[in-house]
Amino acid sequence: MAQNSALIVIDMQNGFLEKESPLCIAQAKQTVPACASVINKAHEKNIPVFFVNRIYREDGSDVENTRKEVWEKGGKPLTRSSEGALSAQNPPEFIKNVNDYEIIKQRFSAFFQTELDMILRRLGIKTIYLTGTTTPNCIRSTCYDGISLDYNIVVIEDCCSSNSLEIQKANINDMKNIGAKIISSSDF
Amino acid sequence: MAQNSALIVIDMQNGFLEKESPLCIAQAKQTVPACASVINKAHEKNIPVFFVNRIYREDGSDVENTRKEVWEKGGKPLTRSSEGALSAQNPPEFIKNVNDYEIIKQRFSAFFQTELDMILRRLGIKTIYLTGTTTPNCIRSTCYDGISLDYNIVVIEDCCSSNSLEIQKANINDMKNIGAKIISSSDF
Repeated sequence: MAQNSALIVIDMQNGFLEKESPLCIAQAKQTVPACASVINKAHEKNIPVFFVNRIYREDGSDVENTRKEVWEKGGKPLTRSSEGALSAQNPPEFIKNVNDYEIIKQRFSAFFQTELDMILRRLGIKTIYLTGTTTPNCIRSTCYDGISLDYNIVVIEDCCSSNSLEIQKANINDMKNIGAKIISSSDF
Repeated sequence: MAQNSALIVIDMQNGFLEKESPLCIAQAKQTVPACASVINKAHEKNIPVFFVNRIYREDGSDVENTRKEVWEKGGKPLTRSSEGALSAQNPPEFIKNVNDYEIIKQRFSAFFQTELDMILRRLGIKTIYLTGTTTPNCIRSTCYDGISLDYNIVVIEDCCSSNSLEIQKANINDMKNIGAKIISSSDF
C-alpha cells in the first residue's frame, strides 16, 4: 500500500446503522466489523484515518430538501443532541486514535463544501480508500469527486453498504467502469 | 412547468455520440431527437437552456486521469481542434438560440468547478431538468450536486443514455430513491 494513502470512513453512525432510525441503511450494520478491522490496520500502518460524519443542525436548516420531511417526522436523527439509535455517534467497535481526523458534512460527497480536499493535499495524499455507507449516495459521490480531483480511488467493497444487494452490485460496477479500483478488506 | 426552471443538456457532443470515437456511449445517439425536441420546447416556453460541454486541452492536462490513456490512444477527442466523429460539436439537430448558455466542464458533474451554480442563482432558478449523457456519470453527478445545492432535480429519462439498458435502469432508480423526479420528454 502506498505511503501517500488515506482511509475514509463515511457516515458509519448510529442514525444510519440502527433499524429504529428513519435513515437506517439495511446492510450497513453488518459492515461494522470489516470497517473496524481496516481502521485498526490503517492505524498499524500509520495511514491517516478520516471519519466523515453527518451532523445536522437542530432546526434542520442544513438537512437535504429531499430528506427533510422524513428527518423531521422520524425524530430528527443525527443532530448533536440525538441519542441512542438516532445519534450521530460512530459504533463502539471503532477504536479511534488521537490523530484521526473528523470531517462534518451535510450532503452526500465527503468533498462537498468540506475541508477534506484541503487536508488531503496538505498531507500529500494520492490514493484514498473509501469505506462506509451508503454505496449509491455518499461512497459514490465521493468516488466521482475524488476522481475529478485526480485522486486514485480504491473502494473497499465489503466495507460499503446499500439497501439491497442489487443496488450494491450495480453501483460497484459503475464505479469500476469509471476507473475506481475495487478491493476487499482482506486486501487492505 | 415552473417559471423558475432551466434545461441542462450535458455532453451531447460528437465525441460521445459517434461510434468511431473511443468515448462513444452506446445509447446516446438515439436520444438526439428527444433532446432536440425538449430544447425546442424550452425555447418556446422561454426556459433558459444550458449546453454543458466537455472541451479538453490539446496537451491533455485537463483530461481525467482514469480516461487519459484511452483519450490519447483514441485520437484525442473533444478538443477545440477535434474534427468529425471526435469533435466537441453538438449534433446539427440541436437548434440553438442566441440566449442559450454554454458551460465548459472537464469532469463529470456540470457543477464541478464551473460557473453553472453562479448563473442559476442569478437567474433565480429553482428546478433543473437534466438531459444528456451519460446517465451513470455526468447526469448522476450533476443530480447529486444539484440536490446538494437545494435545486429540485427532474431527470428526463428518454433524453439520457448509458452503455446498456441495465445501467440506465439502475441509475434512474437510484436517482429516484434520493429524491429526483423522473419524467419522460412528452411530459416536459
